[in-house]
Amino acid sequence: MSRVRVDLNISLDGFATTTDQTPENPFGDDWGRLTGDYVATRTFRERVLGMSDGSGTTGVDDTYAAGYFEDVRAEIMGAAMFGLHLHGDDPDWRGWWGEEPPFRCPVFVLTHSEREPIAFANGTRFEFVSMAPREALKAARAVATGGDVRIGGGPTTVRDFLREGLVDSLHVAVVPILLGRGVRLWDDLRGLEAGYRVTAEAAESGVTHLTFEREDGR
Amino acid sequence: MSRVRVDLNISLDGFATTTDQTPENPFGDDWGRLTGDYVATRTFRERVLGMSDGSGTTGVDDTYAAGYFEDVRAEIMGAAMFGLHLHGDDPDWRGWWGEEPPFRCPVFVLTHSEREPIAFANGTRFEFVSMAPREALKAARAVATGGDVRIGGGPTTVRDFLREGLVDSLHVAVVPILLGRGVRLWDDLRGLEAGYRVTAEAAESGVTHLTFEREDGR
Repeated sequence: MSRVRVDLNISLDGFATTTDQTPENPFGDDWGRLTGDYVATRTFRERVLGMSDGSGTTGVDDTYAAGYFEDVRAEIMGAAMFGLHLHGDDPDWRGWWGEEPPFRCPVFVLTHSEREPIAFANGTRFEFVSMAPREALKAARAVATGGDVRIGGGPTTVRDFLREGLVDSLHVAVVPILLGRGVRLWDDLRGLEAGYRVTAEAAESGVTHLTFEREDGR
Repeated sequence: MSRVRVDLNISLDGFATTTDQTPENPFGDDWGRLTGDYVATRTFRERVLGMSDGSGTTGVDDTYAAGYFEDVRAEIMGAAMFGLHLHGDDPDWRGWWGEEPPFRCPVFVLTHSEREPIAFANGTRFEFVSMAPREALKAARAVATGGDVRIGGGPTTVRDFLREGLVDSLHVAVVPILLGRGVRLWDDLRGLEAGYRVTAEAAESGVTHLTFEREDGR
């Protein structure tokens, strides 16, 4: 059954997006710390970095990392995640991911600015749409052909979908660090847990993997 | 070795103290949800409720609940935790805990208002002191005679001690609910994890028990 999924890394104090970027350090130091245990997994190294030397961790973190890519046939992301807040004035900007973006499926980027679609040889195709969450989800489902739709991020976009009750499965990797700054995932989501089965699993790295699965199985 | 310890329950979105109290419902509904899994343990039922019928949960949550009471020989708490923000005008107020407060040791209540000490038959003795964190800790250590000192709460008081680097052991039970309101534990604690070993353990209830243990063993 096609599901709407979210996977995010957050700090203990709830920050899913970091704000310490500079021109010299476009991702910032906090981002590296937030994603370090995910980046260290064998799945990330194979799937995102294109490494095939069998390196990387293979424990609980890797199990969730592998799940991240399973069955996703369409993705929706906010303009900031694609980089438009920084690079929106550059008509040639193609995202952060080089010529092998790890999505390998249609990606709907929510933005009010008009941009031409960008297609890559590996199946990734960015399409820029000005749509509300439900409308974007309908468009994504139409091309997902029974596969899952992932809401990729950032946290503001994810919250929009969570608040409208559109997410079936939420996986949050809670990293044992306190950032003290950034954009929080959990703001204004009181009572979100209603209707979900919530589970927690501790990884060897110290990361806790939280999952919210919708109870009615939709 | 005498250690300074903290044990708190927080929601996924980081709230350790609730703000939905009313005169008719002096603890509020959120507090019940935040502490429900702790209150359900056998240790809580025996130690705080005085029940001896062997009821209550005996899993991971109970292991941490039992640890909560081990070796604590003095406690420090903020005025709000003792109830002075609500009952400070009542000279006969003796706290929330009836005639068997579960502390059974000297408790230093940080307040600028002068109140007479209150002693209970079970060893609990509330003393009201206007002290900075280091000063209060010195007073508590003096009476703890080698046992541990617990910073009981609330989160604002705990943060004061954490920020000054005075806490050796922090246990946080993260309850899988989103409250969306209250007082946050984690505010302004960027980098707290430095110098601590952080571990996470998932309980049967869905609660995740996080512990920060100071690495130098102090």
